[in-house]
Amino acid sequence: MFKKTLKKKLLPVAVLSTVAFSGLIGGFSHVSAEDSVNKKAKNNGEIKNVIVLIGDGMGVSYTSAHRYLKDDPSTKVVESTTFDQYLVGQQTTYPEDPEQNVTDSASAATAMSAGIKTYNSAIAVDNDGSEAKTVLEAAREKGKATGLVATSEITHATPASFGSHDHSRKNMNSIADDYFDEMVNGQHKIDVLLGGGKSNFERKDRNLTEEFKKAGYSYVENREDMLKDKNGKVLGLFADGGLPKKIDRTEEVPSLKEMTNTALSKLNKDKDGFFLMVEGSQVDWAGHDNDIVGAMSEMDDFEQAYKAAIEFAKKDKHTLVVATADHSTGGYSIGADGIYNWFSEPIKAAKRTPDFMAQEIADGAGVEATLKKYIDQNILALTEKEIQSVEDAAKTKKVLDIDNAIENIFNKRSHTGWTTGGHTGEDVPVYAFGPSSEKFAGQIDNTEIAKNVFDVLDYDIKIQDK
Amino acid sequence: MFKKTLKKKLLPVAVLSTVAFSGLIGGFSHVSAEDSVNKKAKNNGEIKNVIVLIGDGMGVSYTSAHRYLKDDPSTKVVESTTFDQYLVGQQTTYPEDPEQNVTDSASAATAMSAGIKTYNSAIAVDNDGSEAKTVLEAAREKGKATGLVATSEITHATPASFGSHDHSRKNMNSIADDYFDEMVNGQHKIDVLLGGGKSNFERKDRNLTEEFKKAGYSYVENREDMLKDKNGKVLGLFADGGLPKKIDRTEEVPSLKEMTNTALSKLNKDKDGFFLMVEGSQVDWAGHDNDIVGAMSEMDDFEQAYKAAIEFAKKDKHTLVVATADHSTGGYSIGADGIYNWFSEPIKAAKRTPDFMAQEIADGAGVEATLKKYIDQNILALTEKEIQSVEDAAKTKKVLDIDNAIENIFNKRSHTGWTTGGHTGEDVPVYAFGPSSEKFAGQIDNTEIAKNVFDVLDYDIKIQDK
Repeated sequence: MFKKTLKKKLLPVAVLSTVAFSGLIGGFSHVSAEDSVNKKAKNNGEIKNVIVLIGDGMGVSYTSAHRYLKDDPSTKVVESTTFDQYLVGQQTTYPEDPEQNVTDSASAATAMSAGIKTYNSAIAVDNDGSEAKTVLEAAREKGKATGLVATSEITHATPASFGSHDHSRKNMNSIADDYFDEMVNGQHKIDVLLGGGKSNFERKDRNLTEEFKKAGYSYVENREDMLKDKNGKVLGLFADGGLPKKIDRTEEVPSLKEMTNTALSKLNKDKDGFFLMVEGSQVDWAGHDNDIVGAMSEMDDFEQAYKAAIEFAKKDKHTLVVATADHSTGGYSIGADGIYNWFSEPIKAAKRTPDFMAQEIADGAGVEATLKKYIDQNILALTEKEIQSVEDAAKTKKVLDIDNAIENIFNKRSHTGWTTGGHTGEDVPVYAFGPSSEKFAGQIDNTEIAKNVFDVLDYDIKIQDK
Repeated sequence: MFKKTLKKKLLPVAVLSTVAFSGLIGGFSHVSAEDSVNKKAKNNGEIKNVIVLIGDGMGVSYTSAHRYLKDDPSTKVVESTTFDQYLVGQQTTYPEDPEQNVTDSASAATAMSAGIKTYNSAIAVDNDGSEAKTVLEAAREKGKATGLVATSEITHATPASFGSHDHSRKNMNSIADDYFDEMVNGQHKIDVLLGGGKSNFERKDRNLTEEFKKAGYSYVENREDMLKDKNGKVLGLFADGGLPKKIDRTEEVPSLKEMTNTALSKLNKDKDGFFLMVEGSQVDWAGHDNDIVGAMSEMDDFEQAYKAAIEFAKKDKHTLVVATADHSTGGYSIGADGIYNWFSEPIKAAKRTPDFMAQEIADGAGVEATLKKYIDQNILALTEKEIQSVEDAAKTKKVLDIDNAIENIFNKRSHTGWTTGGHTGEDVPVYAFGPSSEKFAGQIDNTEIAKNVFDVLDYDIKIQDK
């Protein structure tokens, strides 16, 4: 796979079906999963609920840095995070794309939702364009409640790959349509949708929020309304696009933990159990931006949601919780430029993301005043040179330039390194808790997330053998 | 720990002993291990031998890239490596250093050999300078045979931290002295020493090779002599400094696998079993150099040695094999500069490392002829511009400049990113096979490698509680 992909053509259908299964990392998507399912004991009656949490872009540098940032300085050890307690292994993330061998979020999410390798940008469709059954749909067919929660648009690549099918992640309007139009057993297939992306639901050609309401869903647009809503079915859209990052949020915007707990309280009413996917979407976005402040903000947001899921599962005792990343982003390194230190204080000094500060400056706020307003000068005292670097960037009037100049201060002060504005191909950590968590242990492939979930749902699926 | 280390002073002795044990990642070095040992069932009679393998600098980007490089292009899946089959988790690597919070190899190796956190550069000594018992010494006290194998000088930081004690890794002569002078139960403490570093043994002030020979050791200096030697005790030094990297080696120099198998065949004669540490030393050196060709050469060398250890253990059935890294190096990323591809072909085109080619050019060989001699032009056809970049560097006559220019070609062609010439602080993978391998599973701290080995050796140790 990781080879001359630029020259590689899609293999003819016949070839795909003849690939051997044994001895491979995580098996292979185009081989029948039925055999493997049949070999496993069908003793999953104990599992009623499945929660899959995906930290988009959350490679091992992010989970490690998050731990060091959260460390209690009054002790000589580094305390473990909630993630650490449930680490079971890691997974490979490579796509099956004719042009690229480092995955995007759509291909990786499709691997985890449908158990198939596909091309970058594919939303639960195979390389030949055919739709692939997702674990959310399988849970629905089994009569379970279902939910999607994200801090991106709820129609963004990761949630979309669990709840819709499209040849391109770009078609976020069509994906929103799918959420309403695609029925399972005569019902809309998703009970709880919480995240951003209002603009994909309220459009000139169609107003999906109205359609959802007519179909019996609550529609909420702020934290307070979400928290007091009692309906079992809810569409919550808290921003036109993605939500603000945790440290930039106002009272109006719920945290990922609050959305997760809201989803759990609603879905848990279904006596048949539920399937929930929760995405910490913007770890990745911060990584693309090479923004360590934003990345750590979103890691914190995601860990809190993960903790909520674990707490639910511990009480419930019939819930499997799996958490992982789809890939890593940015080539982020803890330490850079030959320095054997990574400092978290400069990051903790930030009260807003560089994006937030840059926007205020681009909108006319003074550079020095803005920086000193949002960066704790007792922790990170800015030098004249640092302030000047942002002043210089502000002359361009471009938000991006100002943003980059501010990010550069945090990167240099913390000794954070980056190699790319894109994704990287290393394996990512896998965490699992609850019954059947052992299925996810060791070195696995991302397709095994879906295969194992189909398995614990006792859902016999012949993964597309085309 | 990961905080204002520049301001942090060493804590007074009294404080160290009061740190709580429970709820921390991997526990803590300065807390008595006796309690933890006593709590565990002493049912390790099944373990006779322990092999610890350390891939120096082998972070998750290296293990992932190695897999992608080895992938069979005729299948659509990526085949697993020998490592993949035994992944059990990952470990934290942070040191306890007043100035740095990213570890060096000495501090990390001391954590793994003695179970203590210490300062960077410390060779099995604590922050107050006192010597810390190592698992090799514990095994020797238990009557077992012992061995150290490395591709660096055998006196380099990692092996040194298992077989000697010094306040600084720089004192490689003193470390060589320790290997001979420090006795356990009236015996020299290491039976098999295989690696580089002849210059640290044959010195003006002392000729240790002669002393070892007089003490009944064989002394071998090349592959052939090593392979035919029948003695149970051997000192093998195959280079003045570090060994050439795998793809640069001549017939005279053994592979890490051959040294490992030699060590195993000798140590296995001891009816009481053995302890062996094997280091793939130069994954790290290539990482420091930002040399992807060298890194992959050494990953291959290390995997072959690991495979030999696993094969031995599978036959033996009483051997625990643990493999891990001490830290990652270079901020290496699979993909760079926004490109969603990492190509292994350019790396496979290299028949020698950039260092090797650069040295030949610096010694007077023609640039284009040298490059085309050692880089397969059918796989990586060099452009005029690439050749010119090396021609330009050659004008400086400096090996380093020429080396960097050649490395740059491979980095650009493969889309390999780097952020530093130093180490990075993310967690590293842990692999374990054999009885008690479950002790190493999940998220652990590097000190737990030693603590677990002391435990499986049934060695009651009160790890320095000063």
